[in-house]
Amino acid sequence: MEEFSTDRLARLTGMLKRRGLLLPAFEIHGGVAGFYDYGPVGGRIRNQVNQAWLSHWLSLGNVVEISSPTVTPYPVLEASGHVGEFTDFLVECKKCSEASRADHLIESDYPNADSFTKEELSKKISELMPICPACGVSDWGEISSQNLMFSTRIGNADSAREGFLRPETAQGMFTSFTSIYRHFRERLPFGAVQIGKGYRNEISPRQGMIRLREFNMAELEYFIDPEIEYHHNLDQWKDSLTLISENEGEMRVTLSKAVEAGVIRHSTVGYFMGITFDFVTSIGINPELIRFRQHESNEMAHYAVDCWDLEIMGSFGWIECVGIAHRGCYDLEAHEMATGQRLRAWRTFETPKIVEIDGWTIDGSTVGPEFKNFAGKIKNAVEKLPPDSIFPMSLEIDDDEVNIEPRHVKKLQRQEKISGEWFIPHVVEPAFGIDRLIWHSIDHSYREIIKSGEAYTILSLPKSISPIDVTVLPLFEKDGIDELARKIHENLCKRDRVLSNYDGSGSIGRRYARSDEIGVPYCITVDYESLENHTVTVRERDTGKQERVKIDELNFN
Amino acid sequence: MEEFSTDRLARLTGMLKRRGLLLPAFEIHGGVAGFYDYGPVGGRIRNQVNQAWLSHWLSLGNVVEISSPTVTPYPVLEASGHVGEFTDFLVECKKCSEASRADHLIESDYPNADSFTKEELSKKISELMPICPACGVSDWGEISSQNLMFSTRIGNADSAREGFLRPETAQGMFTSFTSIYRHFRERLPFGAVQIGKGYRNEISPRQGMIRLREFNMAELEYFIDPEIEYHHNLDQWKDSLTLISENEGEMRVTLSKAVEAGVIRHSTVGYFMGITFDFVTSIGINPELIRFRQHESNEMAHYAVDCWDLEIMGSFGWIECVGIAHRGCYDLEAHEMATGQRLRAWRTFETPKIVEIDGWTIDGSTVGPEFKNFAGKIKNAVEKLPPDSIFPMSLEIDDDEVNIEPRHVKKLQRQEKISGEWFIPHVVEPAFGIDRLIWHSIDHSYREIIKSGEAYTILSLPKSISPIDVTVLPLFEKDGIDELARKIHENLCKRDRVLSNYDGSGSIGRRYARSDEIGVPYCITVDYESLENHTVTVRERDTGKQERVKIDELNFN
Repeated sequence: MEEFSTDRLARLTGMLKRRGLLLPAFEIHGGVAGFYDYGPVGGRIRNQVNQAWLSHWLSLGNVVEISSPTVTPYPVLEASGHVGEFTDFLVECKKCSEASRADHLIESDYPNADSFTKEELSKKISELMPICPACGVSDWGEISSQNLMFSTRIGNADSAREGFLRPETAQGMFTSFTSIYRHFRERLPFGAVQIGKGYRNEISPRQGMIRLREFNMAELEYFIDPEIEYHHNLDQWKDSLTLISENEGEMRVTLSKAVEAGVIRHSTVGYFMGITFDFVTSIGINPELIRFRQHESNEMAHYAVDCWDLEIMGSFGWIECVGIAHRGCYDLEAHEMATGQRLRAWRTFETPKIVEIDGWTIDGSTVGPEFKNFAGKIKNAVEKLPPDSIFPMSLEIDDDEVNIEPRHVKKLQRQEKISGEWFIPHVVEPAFGIDRLIWHSIDHSYREIIKSGEAYTILSLPKSISPIDVTVLPLFEKDGIDELARKIHENLCKRDRVLSNYDGSGSIGRRYARSDEIGVPYCITVDYESLENHTVTVRERDTGKQERVKIDELNFN
Repeated sequence: MEEFSTDRLARLTGMLKRRGLLLPAFEIHGGVAGFYDYGPVGGRIRNQVNQAWLSHWLSLGNVVEISSPTVTPYPVLEASGHVGEFTDFLVECKKCSEASRADHLIESDYPNADSFTKEELSKKISELMPICPACGVSDWGEISSQNLMFSTRIGNADSAREGFLRPETAQGMFTSFTSIYRHFRERLPFGAVQIGKGYRNEISPRQGMIRLREFNMAELEYFIDPEIEYHHNLDQWKDSLTLISENEGEMRVTLSKAVEAGVIRHSTVGYFMGITFDFVTSIGINPELIRFRQHESNEMAHYAVDCWDLEIMGSFGWIECVGIAHRGCYDLEAHEMATGQRLRAWRTFETPKIVEIDGWTIDGSTVGPEFKNFAGKIKNAVEKLPPDSIFPMSLEIDDDEVNIEPRHVKKLQRQEKISGEWFIPHVVEPAFGIDRLIWHSIDHSYREIIKSGEAYTILSLPKSISPIDVTVLPLFEKDGIDELARKIHENLCKRDRVLSNYDGSGSIGRRYARSDEIGVPYCITVDYESLENHTVTVRERDTGKQERVKIDELNFN
C-alpha cells in the first residue's frame, strides 16, 4: 500500500492532467472551480465504471434502469424538501468579500461542524476567529443560508417556469413510481436505478474531484413492504468489516452479526452494504481502506430509520463515497401529499378482514320520488355521514342546500370483507458518488516504484475498468512492422468491448512506461519475428511478464 | 412496412406510456412540455443504444471518448457563437399572450421557414395571417429573437458567474483539443466522441420525443489536415442510397460515386455518411425510410464546407436525426481567438522550406552601450519591422517611446530552414439525436397484426438494443414450477449483459403478448416437464417458433 502524502497527490494530479485522465474543465477559458473533464483516457474509465455499476445492480433480478431529465420543475423539488432544506451556511469575509462555507472554517476543531445549526456555527466562529482562506484576515460578516441548487427558467420570458438542475437522481424514481410498480406486476420488493449527472452549486469547491459542482452519481431506490421481514443471505459475506456504529464506536464485525445485534437496524440495509462493498472493491478500491460509518441520530434526516456512509481512505483522508439510507416512507408520501396522486402499493391480507359498517343510507321509497335524478348523489352523501348523525339536517350537494328529513334515511349496519389495503412502501437507497469512487480507485491503483534506478509509475487498475485494453507497439515504424502493428490494432478495435491504442514513437521502454502510467493492462510488441511467424510479445502491466503469442490467439475480453 | 397514421401514432404512444418505455416527465406534478422519462422498460433501450453508438465509433481505432460538464461558463459559449446566434424567432399572440415560433406558424406554406430572416418571417405572417394554435385568433405582435440556451448562475450571489446548459456536447471536444492531440501523439487524423445531455429551451415544444428541451445526444469531432486528401474505402457500401443534393435534387447513388462526382464535397463526409448509415440500420431503422439531404448554401453556416442531414421517415414525416457537417477550421479558430491559446496541429514538411529573411536587426555596438538592459527588447521590436522601414523612427516599447536612429540598425538578410508549420485542423462532425433515433427505431419496429382474430402488437427491436433479453414464465405459480422459474430468472440476470424478466401472473398467451409488446426477443416457459428433465420451452418473438432447450444450454448473449 502506498503512503498518501501531499507530494504524491501533486504528482498524481499532474499525471492525470498530463495524460488526459482527469482535467480541470474549460481551462483554456480560465476554468471554473468545481468542474472536471474526463479526458481522452479518463472518458472510458468513467463509462466502464458506470456500466459495471449498472450490471452489478441489474443482476439482482428485480431492478430496472430508468433515465429522467436533469432540469426539474420547482414543484417537484419543493415537494421533496430540496427548495427548503438543501442549503449550506455561508459567511463572507468583510475584508475581501470572499464567501466561505461556515463549517469548513472550523472543521479542524469540529470535524462534525457540517451538522451544526446556524447559531452554533456563529458562536464557534466568534470563539475561534478562523482566518479567511483567501486573504488571511479574520473579520467575518453574518452567517446566511444559501440554497445549493442551480436554478434556471424553463420556457420563454413571459410564460417561463422556475426550475432547478436536480441535486440527485432519486426524485426521478419517486415521480415515476407508478410506472415501475406496474412494470413489476405490482409485487414488492423491487428497485429502480439511475446513473447520471447531479448538481450542487457549492459555495467554495475544493479537493479536486471530491467536491464538484456537477458530478456523476448513481442511485438505487429499493421499495419494500415495511410489514415484511426480509431474510437476505448475509452469510455470503464471511469477512469482518470495519463499522463505526453510533452507540458502540468502531468494531470489526460481519454483516450478519451486525444485523443480528441490531447495530445495523434493517436487514436490507445490511444486505446493500454487502453488495456495495463487493462493487467498490471490484473497481480497485483497497478493502482495507474502507469503513462504514453510521449517521448519528442528530445528523440523520428526521424520517430516516438508519443510514451508513461507506468511507474510503485516500489522499484527502476519509471521504464519504456511498450513502446507504433507509428513508422510511418519506419520499413517496411527500410527493403524494403535494400532488394528490396515489403512490402506494397494494397489500393483500392473508385472510380477508371483516369490518363492521355502522351508518346511514337513504330510504329509496321517499328519496326516489322526492329527489328524482338527484337521489344517487344524496345516497352517496348520506352514506358518508357518521353513525351518530341526527336528522333533520342540511347537506350541501353540488352547491345546493338539501334538507334531509328523518323519513329520507334509515340505519345501515352490515359487514364488509376487506381483502387488502393500500400502503406507502418504504425505501432503502444506496447513493453512489461515481467521481469519488473513480478518484479513489485511481488513488489506490497508483504505484510509484524505482525501476533501473529511475522513478516509475504504474496504475494498477482492474482490467474491467481500464481506460484501454491493450497498447500495440511496433518495434520500429519501418520494414512493414508498422503496417502489421496497425492492422493488429485495427482488428482489435473492431472487436466488441475491446479498445486498443497504437503507440509508434519513442523507445520501447519509454512506450511501456507510457502505457503502464495510464493503466493499460497489456502491451503487444510487433517485431521482425512477427513478420515471419505471426507471433507477438504480450507483456503484462503488473508483473512485467512477457509471453510470445500467436496473433490469431490474442484475447483481451 | 407499417403505414404511418395519426391513429397508429396514438396507439403506439399509449403503449409506450402504459408499458414504461417513454413517458412525459413529472406527470404527477402536472408535467412540463419538452421533457421525457425513459421508464423501467425504456431505460435500458437508451443505454443499449448509447453503448452501441460508442462501440461503433471507437472501433475506428483512432477515436476516444471524453466527458465534459453540461454547465458551461459564458465565455465558452460566447466564443463558440452560441450566445449571439443560437436563437429562434418568437412571436406573441396579442389576444392570449401565448408565444409561438414564428417559422412554425407558416411552415405548411413554407417548409423551409426555419431559414427565413426576421424580416421575411414578419412579411409572410402579415400576408398569411395564421391563427394562434392556442386561442385560434390571428393577431400577432412583433417578432423577437430569443436565445435558446437555459441560463444559470455558477457560485453564490455576489461572486456568481453567468453560465448556460450546453446546447451541444461538441464544445467539450474543442476546449480539450490539446489533451486529445497529445493523447494521439500529435498525429492527425483522430476523433473524440461524447454522449450526454444537450439542452435547448424551446419556445413551444411539440411532437413528443422529436423536439425536446433536454435531449440525449452523441457527437464525434474528427480532426483532419485540410491539405491531405484522405482515401477512405467507400466501396464497402455497395448499395445505392437516397441523396437529395443541393444542385441535382433527389438521386439514388452509391457513396463512392457521389464523392467522385463532387456531389458530396469531401471524402471524409462521405465516409461518415456510410458509417452513420450502418449504425442507424443496426438499431432497427428501416433502410428504405432513410435519406440524406444536403444543406443548401444559404441554410448552412458560413464556415461550413458541406453538410448532410440523415432524415428518417416515420409518424412525424421526414425528421432530421443526424447531421454530418464539415465545419472547416471554424470552432478551433474561434476558441483560439477568444483565449489566445494555441489550438493547432504541427505539420512537418516533406522537405524543409528555405525562407529568405529580409529585414532589420540592431547594431549591437551602438545599441548595447546606449540602451543597456533594454537592448534585448529593442532587438525584438526592430526585427519585427518590415523591410521598407525608414529610420530614424519612434518605437513604443513597454509604454516608453524610444527613438531608433540609423546608427542603431543594420540590414538583415539571411536564409532560414523551416521544418514545418502549425495549422488549425479542420473538423468533420457527425452529430446524432439519440432520442430521435430511438423513437424511429421503435416506430419502425412496432407492428400491429391480427392474431386469432384479435389485435396484437409486436415490437421487433433488434436484439442488440432490446430492453430485456428474455422473459421467464412459470406455467403455473405452484408445485415448484415457480421456484424453478425464479431460479432460472435469477441465474440469467447474474450473467454479464443479460437481463431477464420474471412474469408470473395471467394466462401464458396473455404473458407472451405482454412480452412481445415491449420487444423482448425470447420467452422461456417453465412447466411440469421442466421439473422432470430440466428443459424449458424457448419461444422466439418474431417467428413464434418454439423449441425445447436444456436449462444448462440457455444462451442469450
